[in-house]
Amino acid sequence: MKTTFKLTIEYCGTPYAGWQIQPDQPSVQEEIQKALARMLNRPVSLIASGRTDAGVHALAQVAHFEAETTITASKFQEALNSMLPKAITIHGCEKMEKRFHARFDAKRKRYTYRIINRALPPAVASDTFWHIRKPLDISAMQRASEHLIGTHDFKAFEGTGSPRATTVRSLYEACVHHHGNGLITLTFCGNGFLKFMVRNLVGTLVDVGLGRTLPGRFKEILHSHNRANAGATAPPQGLFLLCVAYDERPFTPRQFTDSPLYPAGLWTGPC
Amino acid sequence: MKTTFKLTIEYCGTPYAGWQIQPDQPSVQEEIQKALARMLNRPVSLIASGRTDAGVHALAQVAHFEAETTITASKFQEALNSMLPKAITIHGCEKMEKRFHARFDAKRKRYTYRIINRALPPAVASDTFWHIRKPLDISAMQRASEHLIGTHDFKAFEGTGSPRATTVRSLYEACVHHHGNGLITLTFCGNGFLKFMVRNLVGTLVDVGLGRTLPGRFKEILHSHNRANAGATAPPQGLFLLCVAYDERPFTPRQFTDSPLYPAGLWTGPC
Repeated sequence: MKTTFKLTIEYCGTPYAGWQIQPDQPSVQEEIQKALARMLNRPVSLIASGRTDAGVHALAQVAHFEAETTITASKFQEALNSMLPKAITIHGCEKMEKRFHARFDAKRKRYTYRIINRALPPAVASDTFWHIRKPLDISAMQRASEHLIGTHDFKAFEGTGSPRATTVRSLYEACVHHHGNGLITLTFCGNGFLKFMVRNLVGTLVDVGLGRTLPGRFKEILHSHNRANAGATAPPQGLFLLCVAYDERPFTPRQFTDSPLYPAGLWTGPC
Repeated sequence: MKTTFKLTIEYCGTPYAGWQIQPDQPSVQEEIQKALARMLNRPVSLIASGRTDAGVHALAQVAHFEAETTITASKFQEALNSMLPKAITIHGCEKMEKRFHARFDAKRKRYTYRIINRALPPAVASDTFWHIRKPLDISAMQRASEHLIGTHDFKAFEGTGSPRATTVRSLYEACVHHHGNGLITLTFCGNGFLKFMVRNLVGTLVDVGLGRTLPGRFKEILHSHNRANAGATAPPQGLFLLCVAYDERPFTPRQFTDSPLYPAGLWTGPC
């Protein structure tokens, strides 16, 4: 009789080729699957709420696995944390109903993207920011981002090579916030995200912030459904998957996880 | 005719054996001296406000060098930033009066130490925190830290192997602040710091926070002038040299540098 377990996972994307297993490259999935296989003496398949690209971080990624075992959820968490490298922390392990599926049951995801907007790049924690030298017009970026709220065909912001049944998604939050000292965050919450969608939204909003694209033109790009009209893909290291929700309730800041990268107010905009 | 230049330097301590040049180990001083030597075609001696240990970060370390050159300060800054690794950023270069000395003229320094106090260690930016699992009594740490303000013989908090003319120093600020979500900062401003002094203060204040040492006993440790009475040295990666002041005015938050690691309120306590 198999049991389904849900893991809540923080990871630093820097040393990995992304979430998903790749031949000859380190991945978050492989690290955790290897540790689980050692505990269970057999291969284990770990399914995440979705992939993250190489260099992208997660504060609370969710994944599930099934196992016929007497090991308890808390023992799994403890043993995994003792075996995994320091770039991966298991913040929770829960026994779920058998039918729980980390990808198919996910109702909403929340991402934030960190930009440093000042003359010079940061030396400390440089793998957690996109450095942009020229001053960004935050209020223009905010006006443009308002067009994203609601249900739209986001095909203009989809990466190539990702056939999907539909490119329609709903965004509940799209918010640009200046925290002072050059730190800008772009935060998005929606019922699902296409491949490269957040990074393409950020790249295009940065074009608005630089004055290359008018906020009204941003709306036209969204409704053109044409990737060629949107901006470049923002680099991966600024992107954080914040959390994944499995209930129908609206997001609240309490769901932002308890990560130290969430000190009071740092990641939360006025939204 | 030699000119004296002042550099303001941010660096990530993780890849370095510390500020100071060491045989066969990478150091911040060596990286910058090598770049300066390439520009000037001769060896250059770079003198910092003080050393930092292996793994310790700086948001605005100050150093000076002398050179007989027609290169301008802004050209030095630009060229250094193009040559240096991404773990080092030169935030300023200024031409100074000939007699300026980064170490002897420093009037005050400010350090902060970051602790994550929660069940599990952070996976992202783990090289910028000290993770402490057991809950800390912040108010006991605050009460203890108040004893540090003023002019004292800090011999109890001095690392071994550091003969000094005097171990008397003045602290203007010693403040413990809980930012929420487990992030705690301990911030110290003083006219000078002994070897390992901040890390020994932090280690001993953490003993207070864990209930191993009473706040009143902390005062006795300070006045015992005996290193054996103080706590262990806190690990280096939580420590940041924030800034160095060369004037007699009191510190203000405006001097905290413009680093993105200083988003509104994150590093500043109520002090």
